[in-house]
Amino acid sequence: MSDLIDSLYRGLLQGDRRSAARLITMIENGDPLSIGVVKELHRHSGKAQIVGLTGLPGSGKSTLACGLAKKYREYGKTVGIIAVDPTSPFTGGALLGDRIRMQELAGDPGVFIRSMGSRGALGGLATATNDVINILDAFGMDVIIVETVGAGQVEVEIVKYAHTCVVVTMPGGGDEIQAIKAGILEIGDIFVVNKADKEGSSRTVADLEMMLEMKPGFDEAPWKQPVIQTVATNSQGIDELHEALDNHWRFLNETGKLEEKTSERMKAELIEVLNSKVSIAASKALSEDPKCREVLTRLIKREIDPHSAADQVAKYLIKGASQ
Amino acid sequence: MSDLIDSLYRGLLQGDRRSAARLITMIENGDPLSIGVVKELHRHSGKAQIVGLTGLPGSGKSTLACGLAKKYREYGKTVGIIAVDPTSPFTGGALLGDRIRMQELAGDPGVFIRSMGSRGALGGLATATNDVINILDAFGMDVIIVETVGAGQVEVEIVKYAHTCVVVTMPGGGDEIQAIKAGILEIGDIFVVNKADKEGSSRTVADLEMMLEMKPGFDEAPWKQPVIQTVATNSQGIDELHEALDNHWRFLNETGKLEEKTSERMKAELIEVLNSKVSIAASKALSEDPKCREVLTRLIKREIDPHSAADQVAKYLIKGASQ
Repeated sequence: MSDLIDSLYRGLLQGDRRSAARLITMIENGDPLSIGVVKELHRHSGKAQIVGLTGLPGSGKSTLACGLAKKYREYGKTVGIIAVDPTSPFTGGALLGDRIRMQELAGDPGVFIRSMGSRGALGGLATATNDVINILDAFGMDVIIVETVGAGQVEVEIVKYAHTCVVVTMPGGGDEIQAIKAGILEIGDIFVVNKADKEGSSRTVADLEMMLEMKPGFDEAPWKQPVIQTVATNSQGIDELHEALDNHWRFLNETGKLEEKTSERMKAELIEVLNSKVSIAASKALSEDPKCREVLTRLIKREIDPHSAADQVAKYLIKGASQ
Repeated sequence: MSDLIDSLYRGLLQGDRRSAARLITMIENGDPLSIGVVKELHRHSGKAQIVGLTGLPGSGKSTLACGLAKKYREYGKTVGIIAVDPTSPFTGGALLGDRIRMQELAGDPGVFIRSMGSRGALGGLATATNDVINILDAFGMDVIIVETVGAGQVEVEIVKYAHTCVVVTMPGGGDEIQAIKAGILEIGDIFVVNKADKEGSSRTVADLEMMLEMKPGFDEAPWKQPVIQTVATNSQGIDELHEALDNHWRFLNETGKLEEKTSERMKAELIEVLNSKVSIAASKALSEDPKCREVLTRLIKREIDPHSAADQVAKYLIKGASQ
């Protein structure tokens, strides 16, 4: 390892925030030097409870994350918050207005907050986020909250592999809320109806509970997903949410489900890394390798199709890799 | 090709809707038989204008897509609409309430509407959507509107590679709208402020126009992104949007930008297919191959890290592929 990398590695394990921040920036920028530290740090990770927070924009996830972080601090636990902003694949990390609310936590050394933008298709947001989760884990954070803006495929993938996935919704019967409900009913371990002081809150809770009860196998399921009402802006219901998260963590540990979840998580993480590597290698080959460029040209002329073209590029990549 | 595949292929080229529908279902389900037809059909595609429609849930994209489709029909053009619903990675395609509005178009043989759900991480929503675009193109649709729910990474990728990307927003100054604006300012060729009868519409238009003008290189840019106000529910502004889409298509054709866009699109599509193949192969190997399973076990025990584990699995995959 280079001196820089070595000092970042040591700094991070000694609890130096600036080392952690710098390392995360390197990961976000796809700096190849960061991989070395990420690799080394991995064996120091594996202790944190990873909590995924997902739901529609505007449902108050950031405020909820802040409220939760404060509650965990009351119990003496350290908290990392990763806010994933994939809406900004080109600017590389938007500054969301509601992130500013998180600043009231910023002075606390037991809290580490980070916003992550997408670096576009190559390299992959999921891989970068996984790396940052592992870093904050090795950094000693007891709980890591991963909050995603929006509910696209990548974002759902990210929270799906958290230990505990919290799905946040709010009162109201719009089509989109219905769709979210139907879509991520499967991945939620805990459901939150935030903004519960708004009209229609008990109706939304009842709807959600009914949908959960109608799921096949609900009666035999060892974990019954609770539906919790919160008003994050005045901390209402945060106690209940904190308790539900603790209950779920205990449930995972006591039933052996934690190992199962970890195995799924690791498998998904491995495939993500593999995809990142393939994307980068293929993109490079399609620009630089004359044979791959010819494949692309033929594809553009529609002399071949994308599936056959991918097979041909795969062959070139394999040849290159095995040399 | 099998008899079924051969008949679907012929049926589709002869304009048989049931063949098209059946083929798309096969693609969505990841049926390996579909690949053969997709490959064959590719050379019949490449004529349609592909229009991407993105923006926050609730901004009225579906209603806008319907309005546009009707307008194109008035001009005698055939229209395909693909509604991508990645919020439902587990149910495999949610039935959104607002999709029902599209049913008024359903009786028109010149319109083909299809909702696409995610099949999860493996196989890939982007690849499936690209395949369906190519199929509707070969099926003879003049314009293909791809509408995505939400604005996650995958969804943005999908519309980014459309010929013309329409970003839909609505009046109001919420944080999330600001974030969307900042994030996808780069990819929009045309901006729409829908629900323009609501308060604050001209302000939103002015804000957007200012943000666009502040972009570096705006003055020299050969295409100035228009900002169009619409009220999709009563077809207000649809004429202007239709005209802007025609203008952009002409612009692409006259300046040679179309080839550039096609090249980028094909490259992205190829890499997506490659990723799908790698994900499927890796997932299989991690379940079935003893050596790969051992890698996963060591990863779970944190004896190795995800990056090194991915390298090892890549080696096994390459060995398997080159045998």
